[in-house]
Amino acid sequence: MTVPFTLALHGGAGTIAPTHPMAEAPYHEAMRVAMAAGITVLGAGGSALDAVVATVAWLEDCPLFNAGHGAVFCADERHELDAGVMDGRTLAAGGVAGVRTIRNPVRAALEVMYEGRCVLMGADAAERLAAERGLAIVEPSYFSTPHRLAQLHEVRARRGALAALDHDREPPQDEDSPHRYGTVGAVARDRRGHLAAATSTGGMTNKVPGRIGDSPIVGAGVYANDTTCAVSCTGTGEHFIRACLGHDVHARMRYGRQDAGTAAREALAQTLAPLGGRGGMVVVGRDGQLAMPFNSRGMYRAWVHEGDEVGTAIFK
Amino acid sequence: MTVPFTLALHGGAGTIAPTHPMAEAPYHEAMRVAMAAGITVLGAGGSALDAVVATVAWLEDCPLFNAGHGAVFCADERHELDAGVMDGRTLAAGGVAGVRTIRNPVRAALEVMYEGRCVLMGADAAERLAAERGLAIVEPSYFSTPHRLAQLHEVRARRGALAALDHDREPPQDEDSPHRYGTVGAVARDRRGHLAAATSTGGMTNKVPGRIGDSPIVGAGVYANDTTCAVSCTGTGEHFIRACLGHDVHARMRYGRQDAGTAAREALAQTLAPLGGRGGMVVVGRDGQLAMPFNSRGMYRAWVHEGDEVGTAIFK
Repeated sequence: MTVPFTLALHGGAGTIAPTHPMAEAPYHEAMRVAMAAGITVLGAGGSALDAVVATVAWLEDCPLFNAGHGAVFCADERHELDAGVMDGRTLAAGGVAGVRTIRNPVRAALEVMYEGRCVLMGADAAERLAAERGLAIVEPSYFSTPHRLAQLHEVRARRGALAALDHDREPPQDEDSPHRYGTVGAVARDRRGHLAAATSTGGMTNKVPGRIGDSPIVGAGVYANDTTCAVSCTGTGEHFIRACLGHDVHARMRYGRQDAGTAAREALAQTLAPLGGRGGMVVVGRDGQLAMPFNSRGMYRAWVHEGDEVGTAIFK
Repeated sequence: MTVPFTLALHGGAGTIAPTHPMAEAPYHEAMRVAMAAGITVLGAGGSALDAVVATVAWLEDCPLFNAGHGAVFCADERHELDAGVMDGRTLAAGGVAGVRTIRNPVRAALEVMYEGRCVLMGADAAERLAAERGLAIVEPSYFSTPHRLAQLHEVRARRGALAALDHDREPPQDEDSPHRYGTVGAVARDRRGHLAAATSTGGMTNKVPGRIGDSPIVGAGVYANDTTCAVSCTGTGEHFIRACLGHDVHARMRYGRQDAGTAAREALAQTLAPLGGRGGMVVVGRDGQLAMPFNSRGMYRAWVHEGDEVGTAIFK
């Protein structure tokens, strides 16, 4: 017996400024192409796991989103990429932290999962594994785009200006800066009813090098469990780690008997928001229900239920 | 209004072989001294956070336990140390992954938390921060003991022998090898009713370098939340990450309305064990209730309720 497949992705949340519709069109188009990558897998009877990896790998390759090519810059003007995957069928998971030369970090996370010796792997070990497994290796400059470098300089200039005004106070976290945060991710239910989630990020503009965000961390930025839901998060990563947000959605369903929509909404409002966290998530329940709540101004997102049209949106 | 303080620690689980009582005495004695470090803090009205850090730092300094001095060796004959702390009052948290030169990784995790720019920090950044904050920096050889090097050679010899017998099969994970896994940790409730947890580890003997275990990961090996409980875990780390075990105990209390003892026992039996995970945890509930379940043969553990005698145990 099969069930209809479901797929959803996000391309990052944060305080996206409303712009002219012409500027938004490329995002909608890019999300449709990424969805097509996952739909192709699911429509051929493939697994949720393969579908979310295919979708996220496409988003990594697209310079519009903060993951892979187009990643933001750390404070040292380099890139450090994190990614994680989880298979709701087996609860197997893999993550890579701080990699600099793997074209598709999400594929490296999948190799960590398949290899099975550990769940979360630091940069050097992950890069060795990726090379051994024949993944595409690139120069660190592959990830750089002029647009992201301009963002780094803008954030620095603003922090410098604020610091000059008041030496005793830590500059604010620039949460209002467009595109400062960003992540890509996908969740899916396949025709056999199995769930999976994948998340990948370039981190935060001007972040301290060595910071490991929520994206590769099981139960924080990525989580999947066939008994409840699959979750991929985006936003102010430290708050998502402290909130264990992915697992919190699962736990509200498992122990609190909420449905996926209620669990996602309440996890955001009652667990994340009180910590000051901002962002959102895409969630698919075991019943195929989708939830895509966010408390930032916007979240790039797209979704499909098998047989329906693909939907895309940025603002509420 | 104040409440009586509570403190518990573990010095690692795993399939500890029963030995002559004379060989066990140093462990009981070491745990009593570590408990005294935390009790001194709590008895003077100090915070649960300071108490668990003081307790864990002492266990790191003691060569009997797999953390700090006495850490096990990675496959490359070096050491990589992970540690994490969480403050149940604020849900602030800090973790360091793979550090090699910080005498007390748990103190570095605390500095990451205080600095506040990120929750989980990779090795190079953490070592820079630790040096800036004046923490004790040591040569990597400080962590080495002849006993742990012998363990590495023993594990390798056994894996080599097994591999020679059957080339097609992956050697077993040596889960029966005494001391292959190990972690130290502590949980506390202070007189103001605040909770905290800290966990520190030298990892697994012969582990792949670059592996990040569960100890520094919020919601996996370390978790604290004043509304429910504080948890420190020890065992087969990858299973604890996939199970989000620390947060699972919290969630069973928060959403399933279980008490700390039931939540800890059921998390171990129903969430961890089905994945094949082995180990245990120490848990203190917001009401001061202690739980110290494990499914391995033994777990080094000690506990005290204010005004009572300190208890210590290794086996069931």
